Amino acid sequence: MNAILDSDDIEALAVGAWILGTGGGGSPYLGLLNIRQLYAEGHRVSLMSPHDLHDEDWVAVVSNMGAPLVGQERLADSRNVARAVRMQEEYHGWKFRAVMSLEIGGNNAIQPLMAAAHLGLPVVDADTMGRAYPEAQMTSVAVGELRPYPCALYDPRGIEAIVTKVPSWRWMERASRKICVEMGSIAATCKAPRTGREVKEWGIHFTVSKAIAIGRRVREAQRRHEDPIAAILDEGGGKLLFRGKVVDVERRTTEGFLRGRAVIDGLDDDRGGRLELAFQNEWVVAWRDGEPLAMSPDLICVLDSVSGNAFGSETIRYGMRATVIALPAPAVFLTPKGLAHVGPRAFGYDLDFRSVF
Amino acid sequence: MNAILDSDDIEALAVGAWILGTGGGGSPYLGLLNIRQLYAEGHRVSLMSPHDLHDEDWVAVVSNMGAPLVGQERLADSRNVARAVRMQEEYHGWKFRAVMSLEIGGNNAIQPLMAAAHLGLPVVDADTMGRAYPEAQMTSVAVGELRPYPCALYDPRGIEAIVTKVPSWRWMERASRKICVEMGSIAATCKAPRTGREVKEWGIHFTVSKAIAIGRRVREAQRRHEDPIAAILDEGGGKLLFRGKVVDVERRTTEGFLRGRAVIDGLDDDRGGRLELAFQNEWVVAWRDGEPLAMSPDLICVLDSVSGNAFGSETIRYGMRATVIALPAPAVFLTPKGLAHVGPRAFGYDLDFRSVF
Repeated sequence: MNAILDSDDIEALAVGAWILGTGGGGSPYLGLLNIRQLYAEGHRVSLMSPHDLHDEDWVAVVSNMGAPLVGQERLADSRNVARAVRMQEEYHGWKFRAVMSLEIGGNNAIQPLMAAAHLGLPVVDADTMGRAYPEAQMTSVAVGELRPYPCALYDPRGIEAIVTKVPSWRWMERASRKICVEMGSIAATCKAPRTGREVKEWGIHFTVSKAIAIGRRVREAQRRHEDPIAAILDEGGGKLLFRGKVVDVERRTTEGFLRGRAVIDGLDDDRGGRLELAFQNEWVVAWRDGEPLAMSPDLICVLDSVSGNAFGSETIRYGMRATVIALPAPAVFLTPKGLAHVGPRAFGYDLDFRSVF
Repeated sequence: MNAILDSDDIEALAVGAWILGTGGGGSPYLGLLNIRQLYAEGHRVSLMSPHDLHDEDWVAVVSNMGAPLVGQERLADSRNVARAVRMQEEYHGWKFRAVMSLEIGGNNAIQPLMAAAHLGLPVVDADTMGRAYPEAQMTSVAVGELRPYPCALYDPRGIEAIVTKVPSWRWMERASRKICVEMGSIAATCKAPRTGREVKEWGIHFTVSKAIAIGRRVREAQRRHEDPIAAILDEGGGKLLFRGKVVDVERRTTEGFLRGRAVIDGLDDDRGGRLELAFQNEWVVAWRDGEPLAMSPDLICVLDSVSGNAFGSETIRYGMRATVIALPAPAVFLTPKGLAHVGPRAFGYDLDFRSVF
């Protein structure tokens, strides 16, 4: 039995997914507007447990690929991701049983709902990152060495491309990234289809429910004028890392990513000091006064100190009052193989992973 | 009735196609070695008149795409282009009737023969450029506004991609070029399939025979110690433009092309002066002492003054004795629409086309 997501669930999902996005995945706001419109038109989306998939079912894994900043110029349109899913169906000549998020972080938590509304399919309560990550090989299914192809990419100007074969996930990243860049550094994508069996074995389960639960706690705290950040730490099993004011942001849209650094000065009534965050779409490493404090795969979340809502790498600005917390990483990324895919060295930082937990 | 090409035909084709390549299309030498090997193994390739195609036949249009210089590092392998053709067949679920060259210039005249030998198909005596050109929209079928997609690209490391839809030939150029660059600036490609009817209406006919005829005249003249350049001018209806010594070459492999300039100083026993050639894979514009002398779509051919063999933009070097001639352009490129695709402005030169003929 699939549960129909109601409007409150979706509002909560947008809040929670933006927190789990760790700065990336794109702001869910425009996707949320799409879903509100689809719901106003009578569409409804249901959520399906990964355990209810049959082994031989096909699941569409979708995401909006590219540099989050570009999403503020090229607005979300629910038909784009639906078209990417259809491209895979046309290529294979079969139909998907359900849609799933590549990454539960940010707007990419909303993408499968937008596709599902158009296609009349349920959304699987799982993803392949448990957060957001910038590259194709940074997923549980890549750690599991599942087949990386084919990947369908769609640009609303009518450009459609399929990477039909690659020797590795890294080559899928390279080949699909270049197409994405030519599409304007944003592409609606439907990744290599996964079987129900693969989703059961390698998916990160119940992350849609987790995002909704976190979002619900934040919204409740906001309504009751309680501390939303305490609610997030409680719901997500997180740790408070730093509080302060954003004093510098350096941002560049390059090679299909949004890269840069943000600097937060500690406030006097806390412990002072200075936090520096490096990002590649997502927050990757945080240094406190020059010392590494937190790093991927731990989730580094930068939140509005008052509302508890997330800041993204494309929305963070000078003067914002920010609280930085960590949430625990999915277990699949804490193995040596997982760390090879998403540890600090995978992003070019010569650091041994040390969890804050 | 298709004529089997014998070894002499193929040796002549390599010589003639390199001349028609106008500096581009890649040196046919490595392709020729492939064909010699395939012929030694017993393969034979037959040539088919475009008039013998049925309207509803499917024709594979093949080329090696990218920067010619890279072809000197990543050696030709006949299986690559055959795989690109198979990718199209697998994508569509039908079989090709024949293979055809995208461009008769350089090694791309040999590519369909390599595919045909593996696939047991005839080669159509036609192409879509009557020479070589660097970009996807610089073809007779683009001038004819035929469908630009899908295009299959193959990299021998096992990367396969299909651009399944684009709104224009220019977008096909942009999207496929980026994939090609990621593949190392060389990709085996099978372009948008053409029907027999389309080849009959928009193909440039009998260009394989033309290349063979020119090559045969050059080889005869070489054997008889006659002037091979006079033979080319006679066979191709060409004009002598300049004779001299190469004194400077500036070359860069960029954005999937080989771009640059070559400078030839006139010899005293001729008329002296200085010729400058700009190239984007192919020779595009020639200036004599600063004045435009010849330009695309006229074929500008730079030849070894002694042997009559062509120099390519990747092989031309300081000190070479070079003779520059022009051959007439295919009629389809001399219309206003044709000139919009391949005239000097299409390459960024603010010149009105003036033919040397």
